[in-house]
Amino acid sequence: MFKKLLIIGCGLIGSSLLRASINKKISRQILVFEKSKKYKKQIKSINSKIIILDRLDKNISDVDFVILSTPMSEYKKIIPMLNKYIKSDCIITDIGSTKLNVLKIKNKELNKSLTWIMSHPIAGSEVSGPTHGTKNLFLNKWCIVFEDKNKTKQKKLLKFWKIIGSKTIIMKADEHDKIFSITSHLPHLISYNLITTALDFQKKYKKNIIKFSAGGLRDFSRTAASNEIMWRDIFFSNKKNMLEAINLFIKNLNQFKKNIINSENTKILKKLKNSKKVRSQIIELKQDVSKPNFGREDN
Amino acid sequence: MFKKLLIIGCGLIGSSLLRASINKKISRQILVFEKSKKYKKQIKSINSKIIILDRLDKNISDVDFVILSTPMSEYKKIIPMLNKYIKSDCIITDIGSTKLNVLKIKNKELNKSLTWIMSHPIAGSEVSGPTHGTKNLFLNKWCIVFEDKNKTKQKKLLKFWKIIGSKTIIMKADEHDKIFSITSHLPHLISYNLITTALDFQKKYKKNIIKFSAGGLRDFSRTAASNEIMWRDIFFSNKKNMLEAINLFIKNLNQFKKNIINSENTKILKKLKNSKKVRSQIIELKQDVSKPNFGREDN
Repeated sequence: MFKKLLIIGCGLIGSSLLRASINKKISRQILVFEKSKKYKKQIKSINSKIIILDRLDKNISDVDFVILSTPMSEYKKIIPMLNKYIKSDCIITDIGSTKLNVLKIKNKELNKSLTWIMSHPIAGSEVSGPTHGTKNLFLNKWCIVFEDKNKTKQKKLLKFWKIIGSKTIIMKADEHDKIFSITSHLPHLISYNLITTALDFQKKYKKNIIKFSAGGLRDFSRTAASNEIMWRDIFFSNKKNMLEAINLFIKNLNQFKKNIINSENTKILKKLKNSKKVRSQIIELKQDVSKPNFGREDN
Repeated sequence: MFKKLLIIGCGLIGSSLLRASINKKISRQILVFEKSKKYKKQIKSINSKIIILDRLDKNISDVDFVILSTPMSEYKKIIPMLNKYIKSDCIITDIGSTKLNVLKIKNKELNKSLTWIMSHPIAGSEVSGPTHGTKNLFLNKWCIVFEDKNKTKQKKLLKFWKIIGSKTIIMKADEHDKIFSITSHLPHLISYNLITTALDFQKKYKKNIIKFSAGGLRDFSRTAASNEIMWRDIFFSNKKNMLEAINLFIKNLNQFKKNIINSENTKILKKLKNSKKVRSQIIELKQDVSKPNFGREDN
């Protein structure tokens, strides 16, 4: 499909793309650029044919597919190198979790002769680094590809994601950032905030409460263990939607508080029942496993 | 261990206690009282030796162990029957999720000759009903048993929980209700509130967002699918602690919002890093599986 693929940034997502690309023979050659020495070592052991670069220079001039999978805050430092060395027939994509910011950066900083079509694979986990990557990370997961005027290259990019197992959909950046502020960014922020609150409580009452976390807290601790650089970048870059989401959440929480204070039985039961229905929809849409407790203790 | 065990209320927890008790030969005979016709049928198929009662009357006069596993809002209706028929050598326990309220009811309503020592097994899942029960539900889970002046009976109750696989600890009702307002009740309330917020968003923007829930929302939908009667009872009966927990949560959330508005890099990174540490503590304490993503997609 490609002659020379370059993966810039090779943590959990980058190394999963690497493994999936090797598995599906996406490219004759694969180059990897990764700053961390530790990660570099780990990547070498994945496959001996991977070419690991020490810098981005003329050795990347003949790549025909570039995937940026660094934290989004690194993009600005990488674009000058792309401008200098990459040729116009190449397809550039990224896997960043917010898009209006990336759109702005690429419109402002990228050479007009180059084509960067954005992607966002809805895949990942709470662990970081190449040792946790897997070739099946994108299997049956949504990958959102963004509108672009170069339809031939967009088609090729869509094909890439499909080959490595994703379900694809085309979206606009502003719509994406709004939807994901609710389905992903707010849940992460809320998890971080809940764990922060539990730590505050522990400090205040000098009680070890973590050992009783199986009653609910443990689920949130998984989400709150996600990569801090990635999530700081997301919270900052989707600021406007985040604030709107937080405000809506607080408004609802104050309402919930009132329902409890006034023992409003019917209102609370209705709220809880409505929430319950969403779980079955999520399972029907194959967005989660159907087993109780995620099947985590079945073995 | 017992001659005649009576389980009152036989949903997820009751039927798991039933299965575990059969498996560990806890009692020579087991009686079950359950109001739902559907549940009654399902319970019959667990084991043919179970005696299913149609009412609580003189047929329960010789039981020596009673477990209440109905929603807590039912306790008041059951106590008069216990007062009328149960003898003083019997041990009564319950599995309710809040304790100051149960303590108050039993002190007020229960015959002084009877012994009710409260329990709270930290086990369960988002599904309800006897078909989802399992004999291993309590395995390696904490079960909290509450202080009581009858040490012989307390010892016997602790032994029961240990035999069916629990790790036991003795606690006071007020301490329990405070700790679990943070480790369990607040996480559930927050999950319900997050799903409510997502539904509001969906209504406002007329977008189907549930299909993109794999980015984080799906985890919360599991918790928010929990039994609504049980959770209404918990929110109402632990009102004071719930309100304190909600207020602390909102205070922290407003702080988080400010950090985002002002792009406070160092403060946010510190918060996210501190949250991350809790996950490893939870895994070390064996309160959750260590596999990324709960291992839910490993098969």
